[in-house]
This record gives sequence, C-alpha cells and structure tokens, in this order.
Amino acid sequence: MTVKILIKNADIITCNASNDVIKNAFLGIKDGYIDFIDTREEALKGFDADKIIDARNKLVMPGLVNAHTHSGMTILRNFANDLALEEWLFNNVFPVEAKLTPEDIYWGTLLGIAEMIKSGTTTFADMYLHMEQVAKAVFEAGIRANLCRSPLKDGDGSVEDSIRCFDYFREWNNGANGRIKVYIEVHSVYLFDEDTLRTSAKVAKELNTGIHIHVQETVKECEDSIKKYGMSPAEICCETGIFDVPVIAAHCVHLSERDMDIIKNKGVNVIHNPTSNLKLGSGIAKINEMLDLGINVALGTDGAASNNNLNMMEEMHIASILHKGVHRNPLLMDAPGVLKMATLNGAKALGFEGEIGAIEKGMKADIILIDTDKPHLCPINDAVAAVVYSAQGSDVDTVIIDGVVVMEKGELKTIDEEKVKFMVRETAKKCCS
Amino acid sequence: MTVKILIKNADIITCNASNDVIKNAFLGIKDGYIDFIDTREEALKGFDADKIIDARNKLVMPGLVNAHTHSGMTILRNFANDLALEEWLFNNVFPVEAKLTPEDIYWGTLLGIAEMIKSGTTTFADMYLHMEQVAKAVFEAGIRANLCRSPLKDGDGSVEDSIRCFDYFREWNNGANGRIKVYIEVHSVYLFDEDTLRTSAKVAKELNTGIHIHVQETVKECEDSIKKYGMSPAEICCETGIFDVPVIAAHCVHLSERDMDIIKNKGVNVIHNPTSNLKLGSGIAKINEMLDLGINVALGTDGAASNNNLNMMEEMHIASILHKGVHRNPLLMDAPGVLKMATLNGAKALGFEGEIGAIEKGMKADIILIDTDKPHLCPINDAVAAVVYSAQGSDVDTVIIDGVVVMEKGELKTIDEEKVKFMVRETAKKCCS
Repeated sequence: MTVKILIKNADIITCNASNDVIKNAFLGIKDGYIDFIDTREEALKGFDADKIIDARNKLVMPGLVNAHTHSGMTILRNFANDLALEEWLFNNVFPVEAKLTPEDIYWGTLLGIAEMIKSGTTTFADMYLHMEQVAKAVFEAGIRANLCRSPLKDGDGSVEDSIRCFDYFREWNNGANGRIKVYIEVHSVYLFDEDTLRTSAKVAKELNTGIHIHVQETVKECEDSIKKYGMSPAEICCETGIFDVPVIAAHCVHLSERDMDIIKNKGVNVIHNPTSNLKLGSGIAKINEMLDLGINVALGTDGAASNNNLNMMEEMHIASILHKGVHRNPLLMDAPGVLKMATLNGAKALGFEGEIGAIEKGMKADIILIDTDKPHLCPINDAVAAVVYSAQGSDVDTVIIDGVVVMEKGELKTIDEEKVKFMVRETAKKCCS
Repeated sequence: MTVKILIKNADIITCNASNDVIKNAFLGIKDGYIDFIDTREEALKGFDADKIIDARNKLVMPGLVNAHTHSGMTILRNFANDLALEEWLFNNVFPVEAKLTPEDIYWGTLLGIAEMIKSGTTTFADMYLHMEQVAKAVFEAGIRANLCRSPLKDGDGSVEDSIRCFDYFREWNNGANGRIKVYIEVHSVYLFDEDTLRTSAKVAKELNTGIHIHVQETVKECEDSIKKYGMSPAEICCETGIFDVPVIAAHCVHLSERDMDIIKNKGVNVIHNPTSNLKLGSGIAKINEMLDLGINVALGTDGAASNNNLNMMEEMHIASILHKGVHRNPLLMDAPGVLKMATLNGAKALGFEGEIGAIEKGMKADIILIDTDKPHLCPINDAVAAVVYSAQGSDVDTVIIDGVVVMEKGELKTIDEEKVKFMVRETAKKCCS
C-alpha cells in the first residue's frame, strides 16, 4: 500500500549543501521517501495524499540526530548530581545499573525515545546494557537508530564473546525497514585491553560494520592510557585497527595535535557532547580546530544521568554559544553550521549518509515541524537562527520518521507515554533510593 | 476585598535559607502574601479559598528573577547573529533601534513579559529606551520589575537631564502595589563621562535609590576605560560615587583582583549573563571566585538580540554547567546554589530583599508551578536538580505574581498574547528588514 503525506504552506530549512530555506512550499512524501518539494500548486497533480499536514506558522526541517547517548539511563535522571566523576560513576551509577533488569532497560529506553521524539530527534546512536531490549524499543517506537553490542562477556571484561555480536548483528542490522544499523560497542580503551581491542576491530571488519566508542573524555582517561599502553587512546585505537572501520567516537575532549591528525586521517566521526562534558567537569573539546581540519563533527546528548535530558535543541544551543565564548569569537559555530552538525553530520557519523539529514527529493522522510507561534519565537527574523538560538525542544509539534507520523501536535502515536512514565517511575523507586 | 488562593498537594522547593523541600503541603495565599505552608489538613480551618490550585504532578517554587534584560529588544530577536560585536551593535542593532517608536517599545516589552511569565520569571530588571512605555507594560501585565531611567538627554550623551529621572521616579517608584522599583540608569562608563557619572550618583543618592549599569562586559570596554579615565570601569565607578548606592552591575566578565575587591567591599550586586556573554564572544565571568568572596551574584538573560530568548530556566542550566566545565570541577555551581542565584540573590540585587525570592510565610506570593508529568522530567529523583538540569521554560504551568494568577495551565491572563505577537511581527517587518 502506497502511503502519501502532503505538507503544505511549508517554510523548509533544507539543511542541504547550499543551506537553502524554501518558503511557502509543498512537500510530498511517498512510501517513506521525499517525493517532491515545490512551490507551485501544479506539483500536486496526481498526488492523492492520504494525509495533509498544514505547516502554517511552523518551520519544517530534517529530524535531529542524537549521535551519542545511553537512552536507558533516563532511569537515573537527576539521581546523582554535582559530584566528582569517580564518586558519581562508581558509588552511584554502577550500583544502580547493577540492579536494572532487561525489562527496566526496555522501559527506560522507551522513555528516552519518547523524550527524544518530543524534542525533535528522529535518529540516535545508543550504547547501553541489554541492547536486545533497546532494539525492541526502537522497532516498536518507529525511530531510527544506530545500536551497538559489546563483544565482552557481562561481568568479565577480559573474556571475549564475539558470537553475540554476530547474532545481534544478523538479527537487527538493516532491520525495521532499514531503520536500525548495528555497530560493535567498544566502550573505551580503559574497559578493553589490547587483545579485546584487536578482536573487536576484527569482528567489525568481518561484519563490514563500524564501532561506537568513548574516546579521551577526561584527562584521567588519557593519563591511564599512557600508563596502560604507552599510547593515547586515539593512538592505541589506530594501532589495534579500531580506527580502520567507520567510527562513532564520543567526546574527544582532550586530543593532542597528534591525536587530532589520527582522527582526521582515519576519517573518525567525532561526537561533541557539550552538556555532559561541562556537567561532569570533563572539559571543553576543541571543536573549531576539528572543524577547521575537516573532521566530521556531530552532536550528542550523552545519557540522561549526565545531561540531564536528551534534548538536541538544547545541545545545539549550548554547542553554538559555548565555543564563541571560550574563544571570544562570535563568528564561530554559526547557526547553519551547528544545525548541520545536528543533522547531516550526524547522519554521516551514524552510517546513514545519503539517506537522512537533509530535506531533498529522494531522501528518507525524517522530518520535524517546529511550532513558531510562541512569544519566544516571535518575530522569526531568521529561521535558522531561531531554531538554534531561540527554540525549545517543546516547540516540536509534529515528527515524521521513515515517512510515518510518530508524533502529531505533541502527541506520541507509537508510544504509550503514560504507561512508560509509570513503569520508569516504579523502576526508579526500586533502584534509585 | 480579601483574595485567598489555596495550593494543595504541593511539593515545594522553598529556596529558603536551609533549602527546604516540603512534600505534599498546603500553601495559602492571602491578599498577595504567603499566609501559611502546612502539611496538616487542619491548617485550612477558617481559610475560605476563592481559588484552589491542585499541584499534583507539579513542583511549586518561587518565581524566577531575571536580573538584567532589555525586554523591548524582543523586536530584534534573531535579527543579526554570528557577527563581531561592533558590526552587530553599530551596523545592525543601533540602526533598527533608531526606527523604534515608543509604541513599538510598548509592544516589544509586553512580548518580552509574555515570554518571561511563560518561562517562570516573575520579576525582572529592565534597561531600555522609552521607559515610560516599559512601566505601562509592567503595570498592565502584573509582573514585578526594577526599572531605570537615564539622566542623559536622548541623542546628546554629554548633557545631563536629571529632571526626568526625578519625574519618572516619583511617578513609578513603589507603584503598581509596590511591584515597581525605579533605579537610575547609568548605561556604562563608555557612554557616560566623569561628570555625568558623578551627577548620576548624586541623583541616585538624593532619591535614596540604586543604579543599574553594565560593567566590564568586554576586554575592549576595560581598555577604553583605562584610556579615558586612567582607571578600570569598577575603579571609576568607585571614584565617582556610583558604587555608593545599591548597584545592579550587569556582566562583570573581565574583573581584575582589584576590581573584584571593590565590588566585594562596595556590596555591588553582580548579574551573570552567561548566554549573552558566550554568544557575543565577550568571555566567561569568574563567578566562582565572586561567590567565594561572598559577592551577591544573580542571573540574567540580557536582551533577546544577544541571547536570543528571555528564558531563565535555560540561563540557570547554562550557568550551572558552564563553570563546572571551564574549571573541570563538577562540584561547582550545584543545583541549589544556582537556583538561589535565580531567586533569592536576584531579589536582593533588585531591591526586593525580604519581599520575594523564597516561599516563606509573610513573603509576597510570587510563585510558579512546574508541570513534571513529562518524559524529560521523569523520574524526578531530585526535585531541585530536575528544575536546574532537566526542566524547560515550557514546563511552567501556572504563575502567581503578587498573589494574582497571571498564567494558568500555560494561558496568560493579563496579556493578549495573539495581539502582542501580531504587533511585534508588524514592527519587525517595518524595522528589521
């Protein structure tokens, strides 16, 4: 059955190569793909829409890509704050996580997905426990995701178990109508060792897939890597083949010039998580230097335990202003550039290049509508600046993923929001007290 | 006529001296003041409420204080972005402002007030053009404000005209049932000279009121002050008597140790505007050093042209994480401390100390209710952290100012939102193109 959606009266921020903003257009979606964008009424001829969405007083733009998160960590939202990293992680986060069942993760992930859809995210990269539950939640919710699976056995980081990577990959990669991609999780060079790094790279190569990894988030991580390997995390990743496949490298806060060269030369995708890096006191990544080198930089929220939400609108805003301030240069990180990081660059980083990240004929229809009829978005003056500097996650009105309306006028269509909130509150009562 | 409001099922973040969070309480408001806070049903005896508000699934807290803004600048929202400061100010902002009529400022201010109420601000400090229009808007909208008036003649910065300060002060100070306080505007030491600084200080002393001023926002301002006065802005303010009265000092980004000592010794109130300082590339104020010295630091949004919204929820969030990241110390700027900056410290800075800024018996009833029944606020785990790290301006459900409900379930009661948006859009069409 062909499904056709027509968006009319659309002011479209395309996020295409020339940053076009098209005013008062018609946007046709057919079977999950963008069929046409046209300002002339005659373009509608023969397009018998099953559903018409009026975008008057709204902005139409690509869905946002949250390129690094741990969505099930919503359970730990605001659980432990204003603590030193080790105290936070070892004495607060890990003990709670040890209590979480697969079912808890399922509901926590659905809550994260609900939050992300409501604030305009249509694709995310996830790394967490019980990833079969995450895949189930993604499948049901209709969102797009890059999921990853660790080859390490639970509770015994030194023993490899790559079978389950193969199984998970076969079960889910390109699943859900192509909405799911599966990468290999290499949590970090501090939880892996040289052997498991090499094996992980081998597994990824064998599966012709990529790796999702945390890289040089803190000074301590870098110092420990030198002690353990005699090399920085980027260097040992390069040495062991981790960087020979497509890589989602979260954080990259503390890179030497040499590290940056490696990342540039290996085509590693850097995920900037400004809120989490600030809140945990990790530091501020040298994003402008990376952009100048031509490194692909995308944006992520990290998990709700260190953010404390999964709101990409907020992440764009903070990324845009932070580096201007740190470098005392208001020309850095302009609004179109930051929007690109949250859309096209994210699509590329997560292996969806050419499929999503812009509104163009032939792209998959991952589209959000921003309601601008609000005091804080009045007047518009500049649509792209309005999205990056003024808009809130709550301004997202309608969300289409893979050509399916998953939220309309703020109401989720694929997730039972009340039940999800109830279930996660119960889990938090059980585990976070 | 006595007006009584009862809030029931209230989880109250009091922002009192001991940071109490009171669960499941009754909060009674009588004639604009907080009459009782009690967890026992019998407290209601004899309290015949005219209106009952159910706070189930909500957090009750003091209204936020936006301690430095130019609310009428909403007209220029997102008008000119990602530009060098001088290009932005002289070639973009000033030419638009020159076209604005008093009526334009009235509507622009009302829009700013609408936005502020909707995101939880109940008191603000304003400095802008046509301040009689601002007072009119504040009076009508029912918000609380510290307004200021410059003694300089329009279009001729060198000639003083203190009469109009006296007139404005007499007309509006303690007006609107005590909701309005009037200070003297001393825009900055770069738009004033030594004579006008001295005269302004004299006027403020004569009126027994305070001064609202921009201090050391940029490096250039400091360098120019040395050239002009042979002293830093803080030093010339000290020298000319500006700091002998209560002072709202916006920005204070670039303070030497000596400047900081002056500010500490003179009891100057520092207003931290992190978003604006970052976006304009001004730099990052040494807030933690100031707090350690015991300086009263409050929070402000600055104007919508450099922010680009007037959302104190966002400002709290950015303030809290920014300094943790810059200093690589997650213990800094904890959630209760930041919330205090946005409430009690703001009340003190704006001359409303003891009247507002906390929920305590006998305080004026400036109260907001946050709707927590949303994915991004689920689970709560920690109410104060949830407000500072997870909440959005749009989560504000109900706003009470001076004992009057000015917003209920997101709907403004004292402002015709549609008309205001229409009028400002017309102004923007006329002036910002």
